[in-house]
Amino acid sequence: MSKSQRQMKLGAFFMIPGHHVAAWRHSEAEAQGVLDFKFYKKLAQTAERGKFDMVFLADGLAVWDRFGTGISHTVNARPEPLTLLSALSAVTEHIGLAATVSTTYNEPFHVARKFASLDHLSGGRAAWNVVTSSGENEAHNFSRDSHLLHEKRYERAREFVDVVRALWDSWEDGALLIDKESGLFADKDKVHYVNHKGEAFSVKGPLNIARPPQGHPVVIQAGSSEAGKELAAETAEVIFTAWQTLEEAQKFYSNVKGRMLQYGRTPDELKIMPGVFPIIGRTRAEAEAKAEQLKELIHPTAGVGLLSALISYDLTPYPVDGPLPELPDIRDINGGKSRFQLLKDLADREGLTIRGLYQRIAGARGHREILGTPAEIADQLEEWFVNGAADGFNIMPPTLPGGLDDFVELVIPELQRRGLFRTEYEGATLRENLGLARPASRFAAAPAVPQTQTS
Amino acid sequence: MSKSQRQMKLGAFFMIPGHHVAAWRHSEAEAQGVLDFKFYKKLAQTAERGKFDMVFLADGLAVWDRFGTGISHTVNARPEPLTLLSALSAVTEHIGLAATVSTTYNEPFHVARKFASLDHLSGGRAAWNVVTSSGENEAHNFSRDSHLLHEKRYERAREFVDVVRALWDSWEDGALLIDKESGLFADKDKVHYVNHKGEAFSVKGPLNIARPPQGHPVVIQAGSSEAGKELAAETAEVIFTAWQTLEEAQKFYSNVKGRMLQYGRTPDELKIMPGVFPIIGRTRAEAEAKAEQLKELIHPTAGVGLLSALISYDLTPYPVDGPLPELPDIRDINGGKSRFQLLKDLADREGLTIRGLYQRIAGARGHREILGTPAEIADQLEEWFVNGAADGFNIMPPTLPGGLDDFVELVIPELQRRGLFRTEYEGATLRENLGLARPASRFAAAPAVPQTQTS
Repeated sequence: MSKSQRQMKLGAFFMIPGHHVAAWRHSEAEAQGVLDFKFYKKLAQTAERGKFDMVFLADGLAVWDRFGTGISHTVNARPEPLTLLSALSAVTEHIGLAATVSTTYNEPFHVARKFASLDHLSGGRAAWNVVTSSGENEAHNFSRDSHLLHEKRYERAREFVDVVRALWDSWEDGALLIDKESGLFADKDKVHYVNHKGEAFSVKGPLNIARPPQGHPVVIQAGSSEAGKELAAETAEVIFTAWQTLEEAQKFYSNVKGRMLQYGRTPDELKIMPGVFPIIGRTRAEAEAKAEQLKELIHPTAGVGLLSALISYDLTPYPVDGPLPELPDIRDINGGKSRFQLLKDLADREGLTIRGLYQRIAGARGHREILGTPAEIADQLEEWFVNGAADGFNIMPPTLPGGLDDFVELVIPELQRRGLFRTEYEGATLRENLGLARPASRFAAAPAVPQTQTS
Repeated sequence: MSKSQRQMKLGAFFMIPGHHVAAWRHSEAEAQGVLDFKFYKKLAQTAERGKFDMVFLADGLAVWDRFGTGISHTVNARPEPLTLLSALSAVTEHIGLAATVSTTYNEPFHVARKFASLDHLSGGRAAWNVVTSSGENEAHNFSRDSHLLHEKRYERAREFVDVVRALWDSWEDGALLIDKESGLFADKDKVHYVNHKGEAFSVKGPLNIARPPQGHPVVIQAGSSEAGKELAAETAEVIFTAWQTLEEAQKFYSNVKGRMLQYGRTPDELKIMPGVFPIIGRTRAEAEAKAEQLKELIHPTAGVGLLSALISYDLTPYPVDGPLPELPDIRDINGGKSRFQLLKDLADREGLTIRGLYQRIAGARGHREILGTPAEIADQLEEWFVNGAADGFNIMPPTLPGGLDDFVELVIPELQRRGLFRTEYEGATLRENLGLARPASRFAAAPAVPQTQTS
């Protein structure tokens, strides 16, 4: 293998205590650890031992009970991602820390500031997974009667990300002088008002923290709808996406990378990392038995609830062993549009009942499920990686800590032997490890804004 | 000394790299540490070695540049408090973690969730210092033209705190079952919608994290105006307040404790902890020299800016060696009303020029300044503590780490010798150390709300 061989990027997607909807019932899962920092610390340190690029945390702003099925059977009690990742930053040294934060129910100033803070405290390891939220139940926790429409959410998201980046830039590199002798703490010519006035936000700035070590914390995006692809091509540095087949993934990969040109970006400036749900066995039979066992642990109420939420349509009135009912047109779905389409296609293609479909997706939740020995897992990752479908993967262990331990002990060494994955971190920051350039401040070349009285 | 002797509670108020406005210029201050986690870790561990009840962090949502004087000379780059305290929770074991979060520019769901998360991850050590913000420049970072009026802010704050507490209660103790055998993760009869519909907020709930270990993270409040006192008597468990004289502090102490009865609370349920700025020397002369040195380090622009911001009135047009100009009536001040009055009174009482006043308050910012040997410092704390003026103090070291090291090495042992301060932490949680009872969930006795479909 040559030293310049392209290598894959890997995220460790922590869904505690495992990605499978029934993971918490599995004997291997440390379900009591859902609110215990010691458990998360162990997981993060395992992922760092495996040289993962980052820990990735999803998020939602309501209990998973959209159809009245979730409270009893679903894991609904988890720490807020930024709080958790901030704590984990103190007990790790190299691994990136990626938190999901919605643009629909937040303010750009808070978000810019929190990620800048995490980036400073962690020495340049913060990443923001931008989502727009997708449920009515989230709206009801934030004094809104209903959820913003899909297009409106993306307009707001675009403006939100732009304001956040402007705030990160509002202190140029080198603005902090901290010169005890002269009494100059900062160079005022390098600190800028952002003076943003847009459709959704008016933000004056500057931020009250200096420019993050990475310039900008890495911006991740997860939407795969038309609006999502366009926003990603314009603004994302990493895409976390869900595809079932090589062909679909290749099509998405070339489509999004193709769209980047119109925004003056090169394909290398964006890493596409599909989610992968790996069921690993020392033998194939062991992996298959593990998959079967997880399926059997799904409580039907939890399975139907999960599926209903994923397609934004209530399936609870329908017989669980019957087919999917007639579903609404995708234009009327104000949730995850791409996930809706993916699951509908999957049920059609494989002729699945409701139970069959929820069993099929209760682990990967629509992401790609791969199963087998460590070599077979590595083969399946390699296939997508070398065939223009992925720059890396967001790994979704079925159970925790077992599924992550297996990946680190068994699969990572196999990827390393093939030269497909690092044996040491290349850089000090997440951005360096991902091979992403550090952006310049948008204010760096501009003349300084004079400091006028602001009130 | 008897074992049952009443002991004082102590907060370590970290204003990095020291409370004095010129602290960062002092040779002892590690000014380069303002964004360095290692520095904060050392400070928190020092405070924990000293058996402080808690680390306390103030906050603001804009740069300190209200009158165009602050960017060059003032420390305007600090980590966001909740991010920092979450990181510190991972490297400490006993000390409480108190973060300031404004009710004016936040949402109750986020705030409830973040503090619940910190409380879980830290094993019951979180505290929320409730503030209502006080500046126009904060409004401009949150798409508002102007700051909410003082009374409106307090109405919103009262409702905000109530919603946050309801959300903390929305999972009763014991709601988490995590029973792998039956597949029941939670007891749905112990998880409740809060269904709040009020003037400022509509929040359905429940929270997506279980009840915090402390039941409620400790609620701190800082306002000392009429509205602030009333809100504190109703809702606060700790008050952080600013008084210059024993008489004023006694009056405030008895006034607020007296107001508690009407809300069905006993005086013990609230700990009043005035801020104290201690300048410690091995000899009195050493302490005086330290005070003088800090005064000389104040850049006039920084001094006038600090003073202007504290009184919410622009003093930059006036001669620095002249008297305070005619100030507006307190009714027209839409900022920290009690701080305005305190500083006006101080200037009148001592006949201070603008320079004299900013020199006088550039350390303690209106809080009580005490100076002397460790025994003299202990005397001054004891005087207020035993004479009905305080249940403890929020200690504001002039420089960091030096001022904190001195307090821990020199003053704490003196307080311990006098039986006025603990030698070991009494409990596992902040609430236990402060001697505050753990509240029951408001939903605990009520019949369960049936889970109906929510969308």
